[in-house]
Amino acid sequence: MVEMSASRLHSSRVKSDSLSALGENGLLHLLTRHWKTDASRVLVGVGDDCAVLRGDQKNHFLLFKTDAVVEGVHFSRQTKPEWIGRKALARALSDLAAMGASPLAAVITLGLPATESVRRLRAIYRGIERVANHHGVNLVGGETTRARQLFLNVALLGECRGYRPVLRSGAKVGDMIFVTGRLGATQVRRHLVFEPRLAEGKWLAQHKMASSLMDLSDGLGADLPRLARASHVDFHLDHAAIPLARGATVKMAFNDGEDYELLFTTAPSHVKTLKKKWPFATPLHCIGVVRPSRKKSAKPEFAHGFDHFKQR
Amino acid sequence: MVEMSASRLHSSRVKSDSLSALGENGLLHLLTRHWKTDASRVLVGVGDDCAVLRGDQKNHFLLFKTDAVVEGVHFSRQTKPEWIGRKALARALSDLAAMGASPLAAVITLGLPATESVRRLRAIYRGIERVANHHGVNLVGGETTRARQLFLNVALLGECRGYRPVLRSGAKVGDMIFVTGRLGATQVRRHLVFEPRLAEGKWLAQHKMASSLMDLSDGLGADLPRLARASHVDFHLDHAAIPLARGATVKMAFNDGEDYELLFTTAPSHVKTLKKKWPFATPLHCIGVVRPSRKKSAKPEFAHGFDHFKQR
Repeated sequence: MVEMSASRLHSSRVKSDSLSALGENGLLHLLTRHWKTDASRVLVGVGDDCAVLRGDQKNHFLLFKTDAVVEGVHFSRQTKPEWIGRKALARALSDLAAMGASPLAAVITLGLPATESVRRLRAIYRGIERVANHHGVNLVGGETTRARQLFLNVALLGECRGYRPVLRSGAKVGDMIFVTGRLGATQVRRHLVFEPRLAEGKWLAQHKMASSLMDLSDGLGADLPRLARASHVDFHLDHAAIPLARGATVKMAFNDGEDYELLFTTAPSHVKTLKKKWPFATPLHCIGVVRPSRKKSAKPEFAHGFDHFKQR
Repeated sequence: MVEMSASRLHSSRVKSDSLSALGENGLLHLLTRHWKTDASRVLVGVGDDCAVLRGDQKNHFLLFKTDAVVEGVHFSRQTKPEWIGRKALARALSDLAAMGASPLAAVITLGLPATESVRRLRAIYRGIERVANHHGVNLVGGETTRARQLFLNVALLGECRGYRPVLRSGAKVGDMIFVTGRLGATQVRRHLVFEPRLAEGKWLAQHKMASSLMDLSDGLGADLPRLARASHVDFHLDHAAIPLARGATVKMAFNDGEDYELLFTTAPSHVKTLKKKWPFATPLHCIGVVRPSRKKSAKPEFAHGFDHFKQR
């Protein structure tokens, strides 16, 4: 069993002017900490997989997400163009899955150099369209702008009708920790062609089978501490129980990111029903247990997961 | 009177693989022309200032918009950082104003080089916050990613409650054409510190004073033909009536873009009431009249307005 702690996340009191010292979490905290929202309209603001707005009817919620992929960061000149578009939309869909919501509509911003090939752009947009059609996403808006580097920003609206979205913050001491699928597969192109776990996430939310839920985008080593921090708990992990993709190591599952599997917690009393009723072919594994939060705790054995701004 | 025609907009049949030949409109058409939407949920998709989704209640509409600003394109290293943030959000707000909607919530994507100064980023975000607080926008989500060039993408949700948004497509032959404010002022930094005409747009929509409505982001010479094309009409403009900003010429009003004033049409029978009841200090000028569409029409005297991809 490895101990990891939410407290390894960057302290909000850091004053450094260096992006590398802050990291992504620290920077986002610094930039957004003064944001205020109207509680009559906004249930969840910054800090979960999506924002959650209250709908007009009881148990109707709107989910709102933005996400970008950038050439040279999330894909390369050599990436198959359809996969670029596919990834751009699927990443945002994975964030809806991470709260148990269904997709509603998306708007796309395309930043591109004037020298970009129209043929490549059309193939990228075919990739977007295929994912949208498959998952019932209405593509309702597009903008283009000049940029030195190709990028795609996807803004996505989703909804929960008749049930509540599952937040990161609901994990309780004693809950069991589960993941879907197998982890550490980013080396084998899965990060481009993964299926967002929309059906699984929605099922968990509708059946109240998850006390907390998120998707694994930056690796277990970065994402599980986020969940724990949001829930004010710690956790024990059972290494041997972590389901690994072919060729993956536990270290890869911790650090590599872009698995886009679901990570969730469930009350011990639900585990039997969960396993029995789980209607998907998608694997389901219990990998640990939620522990009480401790003020001081050991650093994790494996480091950080993926962080755009940390120096390695 | 100058004749301009909607038919000058790029033909959808162009097969060129060159961005320069396509232009922004042509590229967007090419990339989005296969998009299908569920009419039970989506009232307006691609092609207006915002997408419009049906709300749960009668006369409740959700508006959805994405927009990006990029360093070296929409602002420079020398631009005051607060103004960068201000502009990023205000541009998207202007698109809500352009349909008569009120803002609800925004999510921001920040793309940035690892060398970017945290101090500058904080100032940019102060600019965003100030505009958000002023206009009642809930800032509910932020993401960061690495990029070679600083960019900010704003995705915005707005709403119309109890009235319908005004589309570009409602102009009728005989309607009078109006603009708010004064045009051609982009040389004097107004493009950074403009006030989105949210109150004016909402008033026009609530009082049913506009048959069609949009905002002027690319110059009258690009935007009025878009409105005309969406409405299947042509128009006459009275040059002498175009209200010019200090130091601006008619040519600047046509070509320079980024005025962020409102352009709208209204039935002749409404003009007297409109002028009498207009409750704002914002100037209001009639600049022309809507004419029947003609298959063939002369090229406009002044060229294109701002297009990111056209060669000059």
